[in-house]
Amino acid sequence: MTSATSLFSPVEDDLRVLNQNLRQLVGARHPILFAAADHLFQAGGKQLRPAIVLLVSRATITGQDLTPRHRRLAEITEMIHTASLVHDDVLDESEIRRGIPTVHSSFGNRVAVLAGDFLFAQSSWYLANLDNLEVVKLLSQVIMDLAEGEIQQGLSRFDADLSIEAYLEKSYYKTASLIANSSKAAAVLSDMSSDIANDVYHYGRDLGLAFQIVDDILDFTSSTETLGKPAVSDLQSGNLTAPVLYALEEQTPLETLIAREFAEPDDLDRAIALIQESRGIERARTLAAEHAHLAVKRLDRLPASESRQTLIRLADYVLSRVY
Amino acid sequence: MTSATSLFSPVEDDLRVLNQNLRQLVGARHPILFAAADHLFQAGGKQLRPAIVLLVSRATITGQDLTPRHRRLAEITEMIHTASLVHDDVLDESEIRRGIPTVHSSFGNRVAVLAGDFLFAQSSWYLANLDNLEVVKLLSQVIMDLAEGEIQQGLSRFDADLSIEAYLEKSYYKTASLIANSSKAAAVLSDMSSDIANDVYHYGRDLGLAFQIVDDILDFTSSTETLGKPAVSDLQSGNLTAPVLYALEEQTPLETLIAREFAEPDDLDRAIALIQESRGIERARTLAAEHAHLAVKRLDRLPASESRQTLIRLADYVLSRVY
Repeated sequence: MTSATSLFSPVEDDLRVLNQNLRQLVGARHPILFAAADHLFQAGGKQLRPAIVLLVSRATITGQDLTPRHRRLAEITEMIHTASLVHDDVLDESEIRRGIPTVHSSFGNRVAVLAGDFLFAQSSWYLANLDNLEVVKLLSQVIMDLAEGEIQQGLSRFDADLSIEAYLEKSYYKTASLIANSSKAAAVLSDMSSDIANDVYHYGRDLGLAFQIVDDILDFTSSTETLGKPAVSDLQSGNLTAPVLYALEEQTPLETLIAREFAEPDDLDRAIALIQESRGIERARTLAAEHAHLAVKRLDRLPASESRQTLIRLADYVLSRVY
Repeated sequence: MTSATSLFSPVEDDLRVLNQNLRQLVGARHPILFAAADHLFQAGGKQLRPAIVLLVSRATITGQDLTPRHRRLAEITEMIHTASLVHDDVLDESEIRRGIPTVHSSFGNRVAVLAGDFLFAQSSWYLANLDNLEVVKLLSQVIMDLAEGEIQQGLSRFDADLSIEAYLEKSYYKTASLIANSSKAAAVLSDMSSDIANDVYHYGRDLGLAFQIVDDILDFTSSTETLGKPAVSDLQSGNLTAPVLYALEEQTPLETLIAREFAEPDDLDRAIALIQESRGIERARTLAAEHAHLAVKRLDRLPASESRQTLIRLADYVLSRVY
C-alpha cells in the first residue's frame, strides 16, 4: 500500500514550503496560538487538502511554476480545515485527534475556541487578499458549508431514519465542499475555462465523498491505534454513517438499540456485531468506489501531466485503505 | 438624556427592516439557531453598529435611497458583532448579557460555539456576495481584529503594567475596528472619495474608542441592573481598563491586589474603593471626551444632512452616559 506521503511526490517540496509558511503565518504573534498551531500542524495530518490544491494547481498550469497565489490558496485551505477541526473537537468534546491530545483537552476550551476563531479570521483575511472575488465566494461558501454540516450532524444524531442521500449531503458539507471548492478555486487562479473549473470541482466533490465514506468504514474496521481516535466513536456519539444506514435495512433490532441511544450496557457491542454481520460495510465500500470512479472520470479533459496522474492515483489510494 | 432609539430617528425604519431581515437570514433553516438568534436579536442590543452604518450610508448618498448593498452591509456588521459576543461569552463563561442569560448558559457550549461559527460563516458569505473586494478586505480585517483583541485581552489579564496605549490598542481591536471599518465600507459602497472614506473611518475609530472607554467607566459607576451584566465584572476577571490604569498611577497598594488576582476575601472591595477614591474615573471621562471630539471633527467634510447631524449627536450621546 502506497503511503500518502510518497503518493504526493510531485508536490512534496511544495508541501514542505507550505508547512513552514503555515507555522509562520499562524504563530508569528502569539505564543499560545503558536503552541496550539504547532501542535496541530505537527500532528501528522495527511495534508490531503492542500496536496490536492497543489496538484490541481500544477495540473492546470503545466509548464509554468506555481504562483504565490496558488500556494496561498493551499495554505488557506489547510487553515480552514484546521480551524474546523479545532472547533469540532470542542463541540464533540474529543480528547484525542490524530493520536495526540486535542487543543481543547491540552489548552482548554478557551484557547480552542479562540484558536479556531483566529484561524478562520486569518483565512478570511488572506482569502480577501488573493484579490479574486470568485475565489473569495468559493471559499466563503465552504466556511458556510462546514458550519451547516456540523449543524446537520448535530440534528441527525441517533436518527435511524436518516437516508443515504441525507448522509451524503451531510458528508458533502462536512468534507467534500472544502475539497471541491478549493480545487475549483485553484483552476480559477490558473485562468482555466469554466468547463475545466467545473470538472475539477466535481473531481473534488466525488473524491471528498469517497474519502468520507472510507473514513466512516474505518471507524468499524480499524483499531483505536490506527485511527488516532477511539474506534466506533462515531456510532457511539450517534453519528450514523453509511455502514450503519445500510445495516439498518437488514437488521431491524439495530433500530431499537439506536433509538435508545445505547442506554443498556451491551447495546453498543450488540450494535457493532449486527453491523459486522450485515452487508453494511461491503455496500459502503461499493458506494465509496462509485464516487472514486466518478471523480477520476472528471479528469479526462485535463492535459496529461504527472500531477494529473497523481490525482488519479489518489482516488485509488483512498479506496485502498478499505480494500 | 436622549435614549439611543429616539436618537436614531433618521434610520429608525431602516433598523426595523434590518431586524426582520436578520431573523430571516439567520434563523431560516435551523430551529436551534433561530432560537439562539432570536434570543440575541431580541435582547435589546442598542444596535449602535448597524445604526452607524445606516447613518453613514444615508449621509454619503444624500438625496438617494439606500441601496440593498448598504442595508446588507449593516446586517453583516450586526452579524459579525453578534457572533463575536456569542463566542466572547463562551470564552468568559459569562452567564448574563444585556440582562438575559447568554446563549452558552441557555443552550450550552456546543450550540454557542456553533451559533457563533455559523454567524461568522454567514457574514463572510454575504460579504463576498456584496461583490466589492475593498469592502471584503475591510470587514475581513475586522474579523481578524476581533480575534486579536480577544487574544490581547487574554494575555494582559491582571497585568498592572499595561499602558494606556496598549489599552487603547486592545480597545481598537475589540470595539473600534468594527465601527471604523464598517463606516468606511459604507462610504466605499456610496462611491465616496478616499478622503471622505478615510474621514469616516476615523470618525468610527474615535467614536468606537470613546464608546469603549465609557463602557469601561460604567463598569464602575453603574449597578448590575443597569448594565445587564454584573458590575465590576471586568475588574474581577482581570480585564484592566482606563479607570484602573489611571488609578494605578496614584494608588500603589492597588498593584498588590491586582498582582495576587484578588485572592484575599476583601481584595476586590478594597480595589474598588481605591479606584473610586482616585482620579481614575475622572481621567477616563476626559479621555473618552477627547476621542468623541476627535470623532466629530472628522465629519467636517461630509455634506450637511440630518444623518450627519445624528452622527454628531451620537458622540454627545455616548459621553452623556457618564456625564
